[in-house]
Amino acid sequence: MRKIYLEDTPLHEAQEKYLNLFQFQPRVEMVPTMESLGRITAEPIFAKVSMPNFHASAMDGIAVKAEKTYSANEHSPLRLKLHEDYEVVDTGDPIPEQFDAVIMVEYLHQIDEETVEIIEPASPWKHIRQIGEDIVAGEMILPIHHKIRPVDQGALLAGGILQVPVIAKPKIAIIPTGTELVKPTLDLKPGDIIEFNGTVFSSFVKEWGGEPIYKGIVIDDFELIKQAVLEALEEADMVLMNAGSSAGREDFTSSVIESVGEVIVHGVATRPGKPVVLGKGYNGKPIIGVPGYPVSAYLALDWFVKPLMHQFLGIANPVRRKIKVKLGRRITSKMGAEDFIRLNIGKVNGQYVANPLTRSAGVTMSMVRADGLLRIPIQSQGYEQGEEVEVELYKPLDQIDRTIVFAGSHDLTLDLLASAIKKVDAAYSLSSAHVGSLAGILAIRKGENHVAGTHLFDEKTEEYNIPFIKQYVGNQEVILVNLVYRQQGWIVQKGNPKEIHSIEDLTKKDVRYINRQRGAGTRILFDYLLKQAGIAPNQIYGYMREDFSHLSLAAAIKGGNADVGLGIYSAAKVLDLDFIPVAEERYDLLMTKEFYQSELGQLLMQVITSESFKNEVESMGGYSCRDTGKLLLG
Amino acid sequence: MRKIYLEDTPLHEAQEKYLNLFQFQPRVEMVPTMESLGRITAEPIFAKVSMPNFHASAMDGIAVKAEKTYSANEHSPLRLKLHEDYEVVDTGDPIPEQFDAVIMVEYLHQIDEETVEIIEPASPWKHIRQIGEDIVAGEMILPIHHKIRPVDQGALLAGGILQVPVIAKPKIAIIPTGTELVKPTLDLKPGDIIEFNGTVFSSFVKEWGGEPIYKGIVIDDFELIKQAVLEALEEADMVLMNAGSSAGREDFTSSVIESVGEVIVHGVATRPGKPVVLGKGYNGKPIIGVPGYPVSAYLALDWFVKPLMHQFLGIANPVRRKIKVKLGRRITSKMGAEDFIRLNIGKVNGQYVANPLTRSAGVTMSMVRADGLLRIPIQSQGYEQGEEVEVELYKPLDQIDRTIVFAGSHDLTLDLLASAIKKVDAAYSLSSAHVGSLAGILAIRKGENHVAGTHLFDEKTEEYNIPFIKQYVGNQEVILVNLVYRQQGWIVQKGNPKEIHSIEDLTKKDVRYINRQRGAGTRILFDYLLKQAGIAPNQIYGYMREDFSHLSLAAAIKGGNADVGLGIYSAAKVLDLDFIPVAEERYDLLMTKEFYQSELGQLLMQVITSESFKNEVESMGGYSCRDTGKLLLG
Repeated sequence: MRKIYLEDTPLHEAQEKYLNLFQFQPRVEMVPTMESLGRITAEPIFAKVSMPNFHASAMDGIAVKAEKTYSANEHSPLRLKLHEDYEVVDTGDPIPEQFDAVIMVEYLHQIDEETVEIIEPASPWKHIRQIGEDIVAGEMILPIHHKIRPVDQGALLAGGILQVPVIAKPKIAIIPTGTELVKPTLDLKPGDIIEFNGTVFSSFVKEWGGEPIYKGIVIDDFELIKQAVLEALEEADMVLMNAGSSAGREDFTSSVIESVGEVIVHGVATRPGKPVVLGKGYNGKPIIGVPGYPVSAYLALDWFVKPLMHQFLGIANPVRRKIKVKLGRRITSKMGAEDFIRLNIGKVNGQYVANPLTRSAGVTMSMVRADGLLRIPIQSQGYEQGEEVEVELYKPLDQIDRTIVFAGSHDLTLDLLASAIKKVDAAYSLSSAHVGSLAGILAIRKGENHVAGTHLFDEKTEEYNIPFIKQYVGNQEVILVNLVYRQQGWIVQKGNPKEIHSIEDLTKKDVRYINRQRGAGTRILFDYLLKQAGIAPNQIYGYMREDFSHLSLAAAIKGGNADVGLGIYSAAKVLDLDFIPVAEERYDLLMTKEFYQSELGQLLMQVITSESFKNEVESMGGYSCRDTGKLLLG
Repeated sequence: MRKIYLEDTPLHEAQEKYLNLFQFQPRVEMVPTMESLGRITAEPIFAKVSMPNFHASAMDGIAVKAEKTYSANEHSPLRLKLHEDYEVVDTGDPIPEQFDAVIMVEYLHQIDEETVEIIEPASPWKHIRQIGEDIVAGEMILPIHHKIRPVDQGALLAGGILQVPVIAKPKIAIIPTGTELVKPTLDLKPGDIIEFNGTVFSSFVKEWGGEPIYKGIVIDDFELIKQAVLEALEEADMVLMNAGSSAGREDFTSSVIESVGEVIVHGVATRPGKPVVLGKGYNGKPIIGVPGYPVSAYLALDWFVKPLMHQFLGIANPVRRKIKVKLGRRITSKMGAEDFIRLNIGKVNGQYVANPLTRSAGVTMSMVRADGLLRIPIQSQGYEQGEEVEVELYKPLDQIDRTIVFAGSHDLTLDLLASAIKKVDAAYSLSSAHVGSLAGILAIRKGENHVAGTHLFDEKTEEYNIPFIKQYVGNQEVILVNLVYRQQGWIVQKGNPKEIHSIEDLTKKDVRYINRQRGAGTRILFDYLLKQAGIAPNQIYGYMREDFSHLSLAAAIKGGNADVGLGIYSAAKVLDLDFIPVAEERYDLLMTKEFYQSELGQLLMQVITSESFKNEVESMGGYSCRDTGKLLLG
């Protein structure tokens, strides 16, 4: 069990040190202009022909000799003869050599087939596109290191450029390492991990103008990995090794790089992303050991691979748009490393509000869900709730402006809702954070979300939600509408091996319960059920074990590390588990009146009251839409 | 000579009427997830497997049973035996069934090969990634109508999605019509026009997620065009006809559309872009007659084709970022049509300043050069100089921020300069407007450009530039540096057929002169030369005919509609014309002191004083760099 020393180089130092190490000698290749979209010019491109290449009519009309028309006026119209005094020309037609002006068709009075009359003289060179009006032969059409757009292709072809010298796409070799890795499959054995980073890396490389070379999975064997890297150093311009860049038992990345070149930096002072290895091959090419955890991996690509590829192509490394946001929650940071926090961002009451997603480097979905990224400096201890910070956007701002921000209790109909909104108008979307009912209500009070989903049962009044809203929201004008009624019950293993039939069965010695987090409506329901049955929480093994959503609670039971939990029918159904009904409860949507009356709010109401949405919800099972869309408060 | 009636439908009405006419029934196709980058999901995608699919170690260390470690503390360390009390696990390894916690390698004290010692108990489920921590089977990974990004591909594969249902790319048929059109070639006959719009259209279609079907050039023949359109209506989802959508003699577009379906709108109240034809085929598919002029064409694509394609794909039509700019010049607009003005935009003295490019719809290069687009409402008569207006950006704002804005006299070394800047740092660029020396100096005074190129000769003092700067710039602190000395002379046809040897030869009866615009340094030089020779302007045939740059003046001579003009050697050389030297003149760069001291200004100085730049300039011929970079004022 050996331990490889990881340095803590600050990110900007690592970037400065590493990115300036390489002087690429890009290859130049000729491509047909028609296929040059998105490529980078390798030299300035000068026109070979003029456009137009002849004097052309700029209008539909007749070509004339201007000085022959000078006598025309309203009192003495002038008659002109075809083939003698004029020729008919359309837009784009060449002007016959003897003529030097065009009269527009609108100003002609046709006398007969061969005669027209004019009452105004023509001006020389009027309505004529002279040679080179658009492009003059010899003129620079595009500078060097310019990314070719559709309009550029037009100008190149117009200027007689049929082939363009462009910079060859950098070849980036991708080597996933790890004995646990398997090709994407549904037939997973315990310990198998689907190799998906290779696909993500390949796609990023394509987006950044490169050509990925996927080398296939290499098992944890020093010699095999070294062999793959040596091959890659021959054929590619840059080598990416994936996984094995932490300091674990089977991590060969840094030692392999040392054996074929030099390790420049091993470990940067960031969270996540720390265990990156920055190296240089014997032939001067970059070799990067990209961390195995997906989030660490994608950040490391952004920090090192993207700028190197743009250096190779000779174009600016694209920067993301930055905006100021208000933090919906406190975010702490340990000093000594920069923190990179993925965020959900929404525009609530005219202000951008951001809430952190999970900080776990292993959660791919946090990258899928992220709207932006917050960078916390190395010496900072974080930010307070409500503080304004600058964040980098992962999505266009207009998309964020049209997102309904949901925070509250988790329910599977929210996924249906997200899709139903997109179907009505693709410009809109729903982003949801599963924080529990109470946190959702509090977020409404703090102006952090548009909508909260809540199913809080009040023991005293035996009423849902309204007592809590009155207590926690204060004087704000709010609207409460019903979304669904849903079945809550015991989620258990297929076949119910522990024979759970009532709440008393949860106290049996071999039964491991899994609970929901504090503030969750389901937790409150469970506490109420315990109280009614006269059972104390400490009689339940696992009462303290908390999970954050119905689905992940069900997954824990499916995985065998718990026997039972309270949850909704649809979660049990999705994971093919058994379900013992306990109670039907009301799940409502809370929103401010302002949001309710806004375009976004009206869209939401339109969707949930549509028959198609209600039918879809009920067909999941365990739901009733008998009151969906009904106004309950406000 | 028939005239087809063009309506004047306001653009927003035409869009409302036409874009709401189509209800696409998109086709769904399955693609391998690995090849799904950029495609649009056809339905919400739910995970098939959980990630991780087993309880996995989140750290490198050992897996233990937590309750067996509770006795460990600093005073009585606990020894654990391999294969009995623990197993070694690395990050990602499955946790053996009997264990429920991981202790990090950093907290272990290795006693011998098979024994470790700990001084702290483990907590249950600590450092364990539980099943489904990232993705739970049944969880929605992506909503419907989502454009798949690299990170999405990762999540899909991790969730066991090997194939994704996506919306098939809309097929867009492109039919260029016109007898004058030829395939891109260098062998142009008079009247030939290179068909380049088809390539531009194809590239736009690709960028917007479609599949172009290029049908090849069809000559102006009603039946042939109709045949091509009928074929296209069968195989494509939308048909684009190009050219022939004006009201000229050979324009069949609207009549062909009428013969295979229905014309909905013919002509919108815009400049440019007016002669668009919006139709519907017999089978309900859109047919659009896109105007022939390139700028009109690209605007029409943006207004109609892009939104229809995004409707087909079920995703939001992307909008461009808008910013406020100050207008550097007055822009007039005739009421009755919306004007669309292409602009150069630069950040000067901390403010965005925009100047209009040519308004001619035929100038492809104006789209290549445009940084943004100004829309002038139908009822507006335009904007005053200095007025603040909102514009749509064609380029990322950070690119505009890093652009050196040049306005002034035209010189061919500016192209070299643009490329030299890109070579030093690809993030920077030079945009140049050729407005003449005097206009360039005035722009410096008005804060509209960073740099002006000037070669104004003062008769009285026989000095270059400085007297004019003193007169026109006022009290502003400015810097003047030399760029080059250059040869001015008579540019004449190859072989000098009109035998031009001195300025007196310009007065000969058969000599047609072409002049430069007022305010151009070359015009002032010419006036000085005339005065010295005692020749009156009206003795010169063509004195009033103005051209705006050395190259286009040379092109006019090359094209045969003028015999001689005053210009620089390099312009004659590029177009293979003869050159009779007249004078060497000084061409300087004027800038504000503030710009000179800025990062951009220092970059500019670094480039022009580099040996490589000076060598390149002198190798063009007609230039001397003996004083390049020399400070002349300030």
